Order: sequence, then structure tokens, then C-alpha cells
Amino acid sequence: MRARRRVFELLEVAAPGDRASRRVDTALISLIALNVLATVVESLPAVGGALGESFYRFEVLSVAVFGVEYLARLWSVVEGEDPRYRSPVLGRLRYSVSAIALIDLLAILPFFLAGLFAIDLRFLRVLRILRIFKLSHYFSALEILLEVVRVERHAFGAAFFLLGVGVLFASSGIYLFEHEAQPEAFGSIPAAMWWAVVTLTTVGYGDVSPVTAAGKMFGASITVMGIGMVALPTGILASGFSREVDRRKRVYVAQLHQALEDGVIDARERRQLEGLRHDLGLTAEDVRGMTTQRRRTDPGRGTGKCPHCGEALVPDPVGPGSGS
Amino acid sequence: MRARRRVFELLEVAAPGDRASRRVDTALISLIALNVLATVVESLPAVGGALGESFYRFEVLSVAVFGVEYLARLWSVVEGEDPRYRSPVLGRLRYSVSAIALIDLLAILPFFLAGLFAIDLRFLRVLRILRIFKLSHYFSALEILLEVVRVERHAFGAAFFLLGVGVLFASSGIYLFEHEAQPEAFGSIPAAMWWAVVTLTTVGYGDVSPVTAAGKMFGASITVMGIGMVALPTGILASGFSREVDRRKRVYVAQLHQALEDGVIDARERRQLEGLRHDLGLTAEDVRGMTTQRRRTDPGRGTGKCPHCGEALVPDPVGPGSGS
Amino acid sequence: MRARRRVFELLEVAAPGDRASRRVDTALISLIALNVLATVVESLPAVGGALGESFYRFEVLSVAVFGVEYLARLWSVVEGEDPRYRSPVLGRLRYSVSAIALIDLLAILPFFLAGLFAIDLRFLRVLRILRIFKLSHYFSALEILLEVVRVERHAFGAAFFLLGVGVLFASSGIYLFEHEAQPEAFGSIPAAMWWAVVTLTTVGYGDVSPVTAAGKMFGASITVMGIGMVALPTGILASGFSREVDRRKRVYVAQLHQALEDGVIDARERRQLEGLRHDLGLTAEDVRGMTTQRRRTDPGRGTGKCPHCGEALVPDPVGPGSGS
Amino acid sequence: MRARRRVFELLEVAAPGDRASRRVDTALISLIALNVLATVVESLPAVGGALGESFYRFEVLSVAVFGVEYLARLWSVVEGEDPRYRSPVLGRLRYSVSAIALIDLLAILPFFLAGLFAIDLRFLRVLRILRIFKLSHYFSALEILLEVVRVERHAFGAAFFLLGVGVLFASSGIYLFEHEAQPEAFGSIPAAMWWAVVTLTTVGYGDVSPVTAAGKMFGASITVMGIGMVALPTGILASGFSREVDRRKRVYVAQLHQALEDGVIDARERRQLEGLRHDLGLTAEDVRGMTTQRRRTDPGRGTGKCPHCGEALVPDPVGPGSGS
Repeated sequence: MRARRRVFELLEVAAPGDRASRRVDTALISLIALNVLATVVESLPAVGGALGESFYRFEVLSVAVFGVEYLARLWSVVEGEDPRYRSPVLGRLRYSVSAIALIDLLAILPFFLAGLFAIDLRFLRVLRILRIFKLSHYFSALEILLEVVRVERHAFGAAFFLLGVGVLFASSGIYLFEHEAQPEAFGSIPAAMWWAVVTLTTVGYGDVSPVTAAGKMFGASITVMGIGMVALPTGILASGFSREVDRRKRVYVAQLHQALEDGVIDARERRQLEGLRHDLGLTAEDVRGMTTQRRRTDPGRGTGKCPHCGEALVPDPVGPGSGS
Repeated sequence: MRARRRVFELLEVAAPGDRASRRVDTALISLIALNVLATVVESLPAVGGALGESFYRFEVLSVAVFGVEYLARLWSVVEGEDPRYRSPVLGRLRYSVSAIALIDLLAILPFFLAGLFAIDLRFLRVLRILRIFKLSHYFSALEILLEVVRVERHAFGAAFFLLGVGVLFASSGIYLFEHEAQPEAFGSIPAAMWWAVVTLTTVGYGDVSPVTAAGKMFGASITVMGIGMVALPTGILASGFSREVDRRKRVYVAQLHQALEDGVIDARERRQLEGLRHDLGLTAEDVRGMTTQRRRTDPGRGTGKCPHCGEALVPDPVGPGSGS
Repeated sequence: MRARRRVFELLEVAAPGDRASRRVDTALISLIALNVLATVVESLPAVGGALGESFYRFEVLSVAVFGVEYLARLWSVVEGEDPRYRSPVLGRLRYSVSAIALIDLLAILPFFLAGLFAIDLRFLRVLRILRIFKLSHYFSALEILLEVVRVERHAFGAAFFLLGVGVLFASSGIYLFEHEAQPEAFGSIPAAMWWAVVTLTTVGYGDVSPVTAAGKMFGASITVMGIGMVALPTGILASGFSREVDRRKRVYVAQLHQALEDGVIDARERRQLEGLRHDLGLTAEDVRGMTTQRRRTDPGRGTGKCPHCGEALVPDPVGPGSGS
Repeated sequence: MRARRRVFELLEVAAPGDRASRRVDTALISLIALNVLATVVESLPAVGGALGESFYRFEVLSVAVFGVEYLARLWSVVEGEDPRYRSPVLGRLRYSVSAIALIDLLAILPFFLAGLFAIDLRFLRVLRILRIFKLSHYFSALEILLEVVRVERHAFGAAFFLLGVGVLFASSGIYLFEHEAQPEAFGSIPAAMWWAVVTLTTVGYGDVSPVTAAGKMFGASITVMGIGMVALPTGILASGFSREVDRRKRVYVAQLHQALEDGVIDARERRQLEGLRHDLGLTAEDVRGMTTQRRRTDPGRGTGKCPHCGEALVPDPVGPGSGS
């Protein structure tokens, strides 16, 4: 199926030199951006009414393109390298419930649902803003962030649980103290939760805030707790980020050591290492340090030079002058 | 005492395969969640009055269950692996003053106190929200967070002390500058503390804020200090988190090296290592890197392969495809 | 000068077992706390007038005690271990301009200045709050925080400079955009700085905020800049904290290796190491990991056990069961 | 061209001992500071009108000095050590589009543009605040911060993209929920973006905030998202900062090992190492630890002393008592 193979390549992020694929990428990214822009602009009272017809036509066109794209991806996914999606039926089923495919589906489904059910049109129009997530196909820098969140999911879960406990504790307490002084803002625990969340996240709108002395004392201790609520995910993320980069470096180092078994890095090995480096999202700076690090760890090779011939024992895998 | 042993197992987090224990866990977690929900819902003016009787009956039921649970835990704790709680009398006494036992006691005590003393009923009702902390029995991901806080307690104490000094300094200063312009908000240092805490935690409600030029200049410098107040615990937590994970990795590595003494990890060793990994809260990703790391540190084993037989010197302790 | 030596010991943080010195510490700490409390309470309108005379008497007493303490410290400082303060004249001069001595001086000077010049009494009273900094004598956990700030002072300086540039940029821009719409809040660049600082520190009181479309667009980009302003010191602190602990660990490890030269840690060496650990502010958990770490780095000692006799090659320097 | 060489030296940050160059630095820094001050002060309504003439004369003088400085830098840049700027024509062209040269140009260009076009004078006056960026010539501590931002640019880009997606998502959602209740604040998605940005950055002015129950529930979840938006750049920065310092340490260590090849660090090598350390922005504390670290990593040199002669194997590169 050479045609299916070609469709797959066109839809994927363009390989270097594949100008047709790059044009498809550019067209789809532009269409996504235009859709988001249209949703935002259409919400302007002065614009929405006057140009409603044009917006509708653009919507139909967009759904058509995204629909064809969705079907084409579903058809051609078996050509990819991911073994999970290789089998004709099961592979396509698996793909259709993957996060990225569901995003693509969500981008077109509301349009068809509106034909079947009587849904508020404004709600449907605003739902189109979710099409921005289709950009995930093209933005690989997001991947390392999402990986950190995935690896640290238990820690984030615990932080989230603590936030939930904190909101319940803060809203119950402030309800007790401010209930009588401000029945409109703190008349029940659910009502007080608005203040609790806004305070614990250190946003602090100030539309409601305690007025009694006891309420202010309790509220002050909650603002201090809020520092902790902000510090927790930040600390987890900072630590997780360092560890994720370390982890990726280790994968790279393992490959580097294999390439170094014969003592030199030839052109083919350097290409492979550079490819791996891009896949891992490591910068040239991250990698350039590695041979130095190996030198330091390897006691027998203290200076990185062979004591017999004076050659550098560990060649630089990036090569001179490579920017990023 | 086989019965006591069984009660202990039922109350602990269920071992894999122990379906009765899992059902007990689910029932208790559900009851805790229902109690929290009841407290929140009962505070709604429209609900509290109409269904007061039903809520009271649910409260009696809950206290009965939690009371039985408390006594059962106290009775069966000697069956656990913790040597501190092994002795029949002293062990149970030690357990009864542990944090987790006090939380369990706090969940039922207010109900009985209300019978003895004339306490504001609303206060008692809201106190039931603390039952949410009983979930700590089941949420092991919290443990690593609390461990970081415990290890870094001196640093957090210093940060807290600095916050206290900052609040005193900020409230005294703003009292001087704004005292005459806004006697209702900054009429005394205790009154000015509300502004000081809200500013230093960067919450910034805006219900009170300086209006004089001098007060604004002083207030601006306090907001900058506030950045530091937020940065301190975050920095401590981020650094502490990294070190705690490193510490746990070292424990794992020591065990790993012991398992590797004979050069292979057999099925029993792999099971042990996986158990340890779960206890330490390490992810499969954390651990998978370790053998690579050992490879890198071990100069004589540069490539991780035996130079004689070509076998991998350091087998992967997790085994292929293990997700989390 | 045995008397001078004894005075020095009494004023310093008490050595274990020196009950007289501990009583002096407790008395001084209590007096500082009472002074801070007095300043706060005296600012209450209801209290200040009625009890003015008593507060004044307490002030005279406090200044007398703190004055004697200041002179005694200046007299006895030459007995300390710090070589800078050893010489009778130059050493005392050097001490008198150290941070801690200036804090002590600042705690008593205002009282005497009030006798010489006609200064606003309320200002002087509030200045007494600065006596809280005298607690620095006794709170050693602060020391590691201040050391991190000192080591990273260049980075913090750069962050502070960027904040200054940000404030100038933000206030100039918002002045341009909001100058005409809100002349009372954004009538000049200095006036607009209040908004700029409050926004860049993410406090956001909301007493002034942009109302024009252009001003809101500019303001939104400034709030995003604010995230960076908060992130910079936090990142510096988190990184600096990790490095400071690493640095202290290296000092400890150097000592540990020296103690381990003969392969065992005897009672005297363990006492020395524990003393060093306390001085460095390292926890038992930080240190317990170190011998494991050494084991891992030392390739010849893979399992930490002697291959000949089976003894642990690297004994635990903390000893079993030491909590903190 | 000895004159050109001298001009280059005068304009660069003064070498130690070059008093004329230091005076030029001081004069230019003072002029920049005065310009910033003039811009700020001139915006005061009471000042701007009365002293307009004097401010204009100062502006002409400043532009003259900065213009001469700009041309002198362009003329003398070929004398520098940067190989990119060495060639007479191409080097100067390359320099003229470098960031630092564009800042210098931006500092004088508006003055001349005002002569050619009819631009709002107030706008031009405020633009002079950008001259503060000319201080980048003299503030080397900024460099490491900017390097971290440069190296982590992909991660920051991803965080920025997520912020954009978050703003679109938040503003679309709140538009749906609050559109009818508050048509003046949430009348369109662009209008709602103001609330979205202010909330996601946790600034929270409170000038607009949701009032409906659904809006508050949605808004609360957005404030929680805001914690993540603040945590992301902080985590990236904290991790990036640690890695950048590690990277610079590795460069230093490589040089250190080379100096140590003969086992001693002589006076010339120590000078070189100190120069490198300053260029890398490492503190004496960072570096002093390194020889200890090497000692630890080098198994054959466990105690850092030669087993034959007892001399320290790794001399301290900083020398005793060097403060910073």
C-alpha cells in the first residue's frame, strides 16, 4: 500500500526535505489557528451577528477538512512504527481510543451532534476552541512536560488530595467564623468554598474576605497554608524535571558508550546519536557535557587523553559548532 | 489469636487477593466520604433544617461504625509488624498516642463530648469534616510528602520564623505609615497584621491597601519580600524532594547490589526488589535507570557486557514492559 | 580572665549541661518576646493610653538589660573561638561592626536618641519591634538559609535588577496607556509604579487596574512577566539549597573518609562526626546515606562487605536508632 | 591602530587597574541612570511642564553622548577577542545586528525619528526608559540567568504554549458561564481573556470575577490550573539553574584536571583557573568543593593523600582565605 504509506507520511510531522508533507502540516496548523481565531472573534457581539453566515460556511469547511483528516489518520495509522497500531482492525481500534485520536474526534463530533439534538448553539461554537489541542500533533516540546507529569502522577495526586482536604478544611472553618457576619458570602460550606479555593491558590480576588477578628485570624493561617499548596506542585515539578532530564541523559549515555566501544565515533554513529538526542529532547549543551562527565567518572582516563598517543579518549559526539 | 490476626488484616490496606479486606476498605472509605459530604450538604440552609433528623441518624450510625473500628484497631494493632506496638499494654498505649490513632479518636470524640457539655452544635457538626483525615490510612502517596516535610522540618521552621518576623516587621511599618490615613484598617499593629499576612503570602485581597505615598513605598517593598516568603518553602521542598528520592534510591540500590552479588537477579530477588520499590514509592522509571547508572559508575564494566561471555553484567530488575 | 570567660559562656547559646547559661538564654529570649509583644499591644488604642506609664517602665528596664548585655558581649567577645575577634582593641572594633552586634546596638540606641533629639515617639516605639532580630543569636536553623542567600547573592542581585527593570518598564508602559483614562491612579510614572510592583509580585490588590483595551493587553503581558519574577528567586533558591547541602555533605564526607582510613569508626570519631554534622545542620537521614553512597562509588567494595571476613567495610557513622 | 585599541578598552568593562576605563564606565552608567530618572521625574505633572526646557537640553546632550558611544563601539569592536566581529566590514555588520548593539541603537534612534515623523512626544519620552537595558554592558551576573533561559528555551516555549491554551480555554469557558450575568465584563471571549490571564497568573485583581454558581465552579478549577502555570516555569528554571551550574563546573573541572596532570597547581595555573572561574560566574564555594569531589570519585586516592609521601594529591585551586 504505497498510497497509504504516503498519506501517513503527509499527515505526520514532515521529515526533513519532504516539502509536500511540510505543506500539509502548514495548512492544517493554519486551519486550526483560523478556527480558534474564528471562535474568539465570533463571540464579539458586533461581529457575531453581522457575519454569522460566513462563520457558518467556514465551520462547514473546517469540519469537512478535519473529518477527512481524521479518517485518513485512522486509515493510515497501521503504516506507523508503533507496534500497538500495526494490526488492521485491533490496531485501528486501539488508535481510535488514544488521547490524540479522541482530541481529533472531539474537534468534529459536536458539529454532527448539533444536527441530531437541540443543543445550545453558543455552547457548541465555544467548544470549537478545543480544536487548539489538535496542535499537540506538531508541538513536540510539550512531550517532555507531559512525561514529567505522568511520571510524578502519584506525587501530583497526593498534592491534589491535600488541596482538596485544604479546601474542605478552610471552607468549613471560615463558614463557622463568618457565617453570621456575612451570610450572603459564607452562608454555607459550598458557598465558602469559593473563598477557600481563591485563597489557597493565592489568587485572592478580594470579592469576599473575612471581616470578623476570628475569621481574619483563621483566614491568615489559610493564606499561609496557600503558600504550601503552591509550593508542593512547584517542588514536585522542579525535582521531577531534573530527574526526567537525568533519565533521558542516561539513555543517551548508554547509547554513547556503545558507540564508544571501539574508541571512536564515526559519521554513522554521530548521526544516530544526534537522532536519539532530538527524540529525547536534549539540547546540545546537555550532551556536550557528557563526554567530560564520563572522563571524570572514569578514573583510568583522568585527563581524557591517551597516555600513550595523546589522543582524546572520548570524542565529542555533537561535533564542533552545533548550535541546538 | 487467629481472629485478632484476621481483624488486623481486614482493617489494614488489603493485600492483593484478599477480597474481604478490600471490601472493608471500600466500605470505610465510602463512609468517610459520605460523612464529609453530609457535613458540607447539611450546612446549606435549605437542607439542614428539613433533613436534620436524617442527618442525626446518619451521624449516630457513623460514630458507631468508627467507634467499633477504633476499638478493633486498638485491639488488633499488636498483630502488626511494627515492633513498637507489639507489647499488649505498652504497645497499645504507644499506638493510642500515634498521629493516626489520634485522628481516629478525634473523629468520634466530639459526639460524646456534646452529650457531656453544652457545646455549640454547629461547631461540632463542622468538626466532623476532620474525618477526612481518616483517609490517610489508605492514601500511601501522601507518605513521601510528609517524609520530606519531616526531614526538612528545621528548614521549614526557619522559613516559618522568617515569615513571623516579616509579618511583625510589615505590620509595624505599615501601622506607622498608614495609621492616620486609614485608622479603621491600620489602627493598631494587630489590625495591620491582616494586611501584612495577605501581602506576604502574595494573596492580596485588596480589601485594605496603603493609600499614602510613604505607605505605598513601604508596601511595595513588602510585596517584594513576599516573593521571598513564597520562594523559601518552595525551594526547600524542591530540594528536599530531590534528596528524598535520592535517599530512597540509595536504599534500593543497596538491596540491588546485594541481589547482584551472584551476577543475576532470579525470580525471588526480582519479587523482593519490586516489593521494596513499592514500599519506597519509587516509579518503574526511577528504578530502570539504576542499572545503567551502576554501569556508568563501575569503570571496569564500561559497556555493561561481560568481556568474556558477552552477557549483560547488570540485568534489569524491573523486567520488560512493567508500566508503573 | 576566668570571669570574662564565664560571661562569654553565659551569653553564648548554652553548652549541654550548662544550666546557668541556659537560664540566661531563656531570660533574654523571654525579654525579647515580651518586648515584641509590648510593642504590638501598646499600639492598640484602648491599651496604649491607659497603661502608657507601665509600658514606659518596662521599656527602661528592657533597655537597661539589653545595654548591659551589649557591653558584656563587647567585653567578653575576645574569649570566643573566632580569630577575628581575639585582639583586645581591633577585635572588639571588628565585632562592633558585625551584623549581630549592630542589631544589638539598634535595639537600644533609639531610646537614647529620643533623649537627645525630638523624634516622633510613636516611630521610636515601633522601632522596638526590630528587637526580634536579636533572636538570631539563638536560632541556628536560620544560618543555612542565610548562607544560601549569601552564596547566591550575585544571582539574587541579577534577579533583583531584573525586577527593577521590570517595574520601570511596566510603570512607563501602563502610564502611556492608562494616563488619560485614569489620571488619578496612573498620572505619572512614579504613581504607576505602585500598580507595577503589586502586579509583578503577583499580589494584585486590585485597588488600581487598567481599564482601557490597550492597557489591559499591556497589563496582561506584565502579569505573565510577573510569573517569571516569582520564578527566578524560587529557582535560584531551590538550586542553591541543593548545592549548599551537597557542599556541606562534601565537608562531612572528607572528615568521614579520614575517620575511615583505618577501616573502623571508633567512639571518639563517631562523637566528632556527630558534632560536625550538627554544626553543618545536616540531618541524620542526610548522613546515613553517605556510607552507602561511598560503597556505590567505590567499585572494589561493591557490596560493602569485606570479601575475606564478611565484615561491613564502611560502618554507619550515626549509629543505630539516632533520630535527628 | 593603538588609538582604536584604547577606545575599545575604555568602552569595555574596566580591566583591574585601568582607572581611565573605570571612569568612562562610571560616567556612562551614571548617564544611563540619570536618563531613567529624568524619564520618571518628567512624567510628574508638576515637574514636566515647568522644567520641560531643561529636560530637552539634557536629552540632546544624552543622545549626543550615546551616539558617540555607539559609533565608537562600532568602530572599535574589531579589536575585541570575539572572532565573529574581527573582520572590518562583515564583523561590524554582524555586531550591528547583535542584541547589545541593537539596544544601543534603540537608545538613540527615537530622538532622530521624532525629527522625521510626527510621533506622539510623550510616547517617545517614555521610550527612553529602554535605555536602562544599556546597563547590560556592565552587569555580568545577568549572563548566567539569560543562558539558563536560552538553554531551556524549548521547555519555556512549551510552558508558554500551555499558558496560551489555558487562556483560550479559560476565557471561552467563563464567557459561556458568565456571559449573561455580567455582559459588561464577560461580553465576549476577548473581553473574558483579561480575567483569564489575571487568574491563571494568580495575580487576581478582583475587578472582575465570576458571580454565578457555575461560573464560580469553573473559575475555581481555573485558579487551580493557575498554580500549575506558575509552577511550570519555576520548575524549569530551578532545574535549569542546577544543570547550568553543573555544566559550568564540568568546564572548570576539565581545566582543573589538565592543571593537575603534573600533580601540583602552580601560581600560573591558579591564576588561569581563577580567571576561568570568574568568567563562568562560579563562586569560590562552588569550586572549593571540587577537589574534594574528585578525591571521592577517584577510588585509588581515597584519602586525598599520596600513600608514599603523605602530600595532598589534589591541591586546593582557590588558595586559602579567598572570599568570593
